[in-house]
Amino acid sequence: MESISVNTAKRQELVDITSRVQHLVSQKEFKSGLLTIYCPHTTAAMTINEGADPSVARDILASLEKLVPWKGDYRHAEGNSDSHIKTSLTGPSVQVIVEEGRLMLGTWQKIFFAEFDGPRPRKVWLKWIAG
Amino acid sequence: MESISVNTAKRQELVDITSRVQHLVSQKEFKSGLLTIYCPHTTAAMTINEGADPSVARDILASLEKLVPWKGDYRHAEGNSDSHIKTSLTGPSVQVIVEEGRLMLGTWQKIFFAEFDGPRPRKVWLKWIAG
Amino acid sequence: MESISVNTAKRQELVDITSRVQHLVSQKEFKSGLLTIYCPHTTAAMTINEGADPSVARDILASLEKLVPWKGDYRHAEGNSDSHIKTSLTGPSVQVIVEEGRLMLGTWQKIFFAEFDGPRPRKVWLKWIAG
Repeated sequence: MESISVNTAKRQELVDITSRVQHLVSQKEFKSGLLTIYCPHTTAAMTINEGADPSVARDILASLEKLVPWKGDYRHAEGNSDSHIKTSLTGPSVQVIVEEGRLMLGTWQKIFFAEFDGPRPRKVWLKWIAG
Repeated sequence: MESISVNTAKRQELVDITSRVQHLVSQKEFKSGLLTIYCPHTTAAMTINEGADPSVARDILASLEKLVPWKGDYRHAEGNSDSHIKTSLTGPSVQVIVEEGRLMLGTWQKIFFAEFDGPRPRKVWLKWIAG
Repeated sequence: MESISVNTAKRQELVDITSRVQHLVSQKEFKSGLLTIYCPHTTAAMTINEGADPSVARDILASLEKLVPWKGDYRHAEGNSDSHIKTSLTGPSVQVIVEEGRLMLGTWQKIFFAEFDGPRPRKVWLKWIAG
């Protein structure tokens, strides 16, 4: 298992980690297989979406905030229930195909660490399965 | 890696691709393992749900539209912010177990390509990991 | 493929199955690889979230219920459209890394079977890929 550190800068933020993941794939000489990119936190998640226009990430976060507001009628006393809920809506991991040592992503796809309760130092775990 | 072409017919649509995926599994003689079915687009996603009653797909799309309306207070200027957001809510891939050459799906489960910004010609990528 | 039975007790419920999954990993002597934990139902799903404070699970279910109410303007005639929709929002499976025979989960992470149309006897399927 490999690990990447991500230092987030805001309470809610999508951090593009694509080039760091590709760097690790190249460095480890992973050739053909499936890479699981896993978030070990319960107030952050993984997603894949458009990276070219930063407005897309902004719209995703704004929409999630509208659906699950920070302040609401929650029972969990830590003030971050919205972060936990957004995490389950987004999902704890993404699986990316690797061929000839390259992440197989669509033209506009980037891999994002979705911070929902930052800023914090975070980890992303990566598991390689050759195939 | 394998690839399937999907031509969608509407702006938003769930296209059942189960039989095409099973056909590929049979043709490639995949026996036991894990099949990742991956959507390389940022305004379309993959999901698994009931396929027997088409009202279920209709209700899923109608509910997503109520949660994330096509027209809204978005910053991304291409008029498809809702499609990007629905994509992150639904997820870029599904993993299906294969045993004895057959997709292991529950009684009512079908694999759907979730189009959120069609109609368009689309691709689905498939990665086989034996195990 | 392995299978676990889960008997749910309420219409909507997050059931922590972490210790049962770890037990199976130990029993089968799975060492290093990727474990797919798959829900073969269309009105239930899998998620990973905080297990320490049960209020988190309560808040997740309450928020999903606010977003997708049980009673609404649905076409599917079985009275469980909300359950199908919540299933697609949450996702059919989770992938967990295993190292040295242990589920690699973050400090607060637990694996939950998300029941959206219980109480019912349910199954969870598990597929091991060594790597």
